[in-house]
Amino acid sequence: MFLGKVIGTVWSTKKDENLVGSKLLIIRQLDLDLKEKQSFVVAVDSVGAGEGEIVLVATGSSARQTNITRNKPVDAVVMAIVDKFDISLKKKLEAETNN
Amino acid sequence: MFLGKVIGTVWSTKKDENLVGSKLLIIRQLDLDLKEKQSFVVAVDSVGAGEGEIVLVATGSSARQTNITRNKPVDAVVMAIVDKFDISLKKKLEAETNN
Amino acid sequence: MFLGKVIGTVWSTKKDENLVGSKLLIIRQLDLDLKEKQSFVVAVDSVGAGEGEIVLVATGSSARQTNITRNKPVDAVVMAIVDKFDISLKKKLEAETNN
Amino acid sequence: MFLGKVIGTVWSTKKDENLVGSKLLIIRQLDLDLKEKQSFVVAVDSVGAGEGEIVLVATGSSARQTNITRNKPVDAVVMAIVDKFDISLKKKLEAETNN
Amino acid sequence: MFLGKVIGTVWSTKKDENLVGSKLLIIRQLDLDLKEKQSFVVAVDSVGAGEGEIVLVATGSSARQTNITRNKPVDAVVMAIVDKFDISLKKKLEAETNN
Repeated sequence: MFLGKVIGTVWSTKKDENLVGSKLLIIRQLDLDLKEKQSFVVAVDSVGAGEGEIVLVATGSSARQTNITRNKPVDAVVMAIVDKFDISLKKKLEAETNN
Repeated sequence: MFLGKVIGTVWSTKKDENLVGSKLLIIRQLDLDLKEKQSFVVAVDSVGAGEGEIVLVATGSSARQTNITRNKPVDAVVMAIVDKFDISLKKKLEAETNN
Repeated sequence: MFLGKVIGTVWSTKKDENLVGSKLLIIRQLDLDLKEKQSFVVAVDSVGAGEGEIVLVATGSSARQTNITRNKPVDAVVMAIVDKFDISLKKKLEAETNN
Repeated sequence: MFLGKVIGTVWSTKKDENLVGSKLLIIRQLDLDLKEKQSFVVAVDSVGAGEGEIVLVATGSSARQTNITRNKPVDAVVMAIVDKFDISLKKKLEAETNN
Repeated sequence: MFLGKVIGTVWSTKKDENLVGSKLLIIRQLDLDLKEKQSFVVAVDSVGAGEGEIVLVATGSSARQTNITRNKPVDAVVMAIVDKFDISLKKKLEAETNN
């Protein structure tokens, strides 16, 4: 999964009939410092994520393994909202090698 | 899914027999400002998208989950035409950090 | 699918038994101006493509959806030979924004 | 599979119901000299990997082929802890071509 | 499939139970001139490839379509050893456009 932030929504009237009712979120990828990268995807929401929240996105066929996305033509799903992101080891290493 | 714009069509006579009748669109990837990026794919149309329209493209096995693409050797499908693309949060953030 | 040009062939004696008889083509990726990019893949031929021809390549599990590749360990297949590639819209836009 | 190092953990309360109990690790990709690259993924642990350990990560649908991840919306799994990583050939070649 | 060279081996004791007995090879990607690129993967061997040999690697779900990898959490397999790699067309084109 990749780490992302919900930054917007996509509206579509003319779409695959199986997608009616699915919420399409715009997710910007985050780096390890939680800064936004340039890349983004449009993903179906399966956990009620809101704008500004930090989430995990599963892609490919794995994106179809939720009750909301099963058998639908979607290749990205928000399947978790992140509470805490602990990279203490990273910070420890950086402190040791800092110069 | 990624955001793209329909910029053309591919014609092919000699192709997998299951693809007869499928419309093959050339889709250029868009960034968050809806500017065209260099990358593009050829995708099957499943929603009647026309040249110049902004669309969503699903890739991989998910591209075979529409009535038009099921069990066919295609790895990209246009499965939605975009009506509105709301990234107000992004703009808000940029305004705050603008210098 | 991506757009490519057949530029060569790979021969292999020691290979998965299901691949006996499959023709392995070297396909170089093309940009929108049909110029060759650096990236290339080795793909199974399912449509009788010859050297120099412009083709479409499907990748991933979709590459196994032809009669020639079904259930085989291949992740790229040539599934169409391109007759015509129409990006008139792109050219129109470029003419308008040319400076 | 790609080579990575476990550098942290992600906590999530609001997530797909099938993910309850799965441990989510932050894995940074390594190069051939075992130096950390910029890219990282969040992967489910299936082998009891701890922080600082060097592991292999399988992605895509292959990430769902363990007892812990089957049928779940996850696209990356830690499926092996690396004991030894032997690239003696690489070193030999570099010694020969060194100038 | 991509073209690669076997440059080493990975040993792992603690791994998914289905991987016991599978040989894990380190494969470095090659360009069209058979020069090694920076990128590499760890792939299961299904054809008895040895160090220094030039091989083809299939990735994703296609990597699970050999007798050795079926239903296992692996996303890359060596499924052919390359005997000959013919890109005469490429050389011809380069000769013509050389300046």
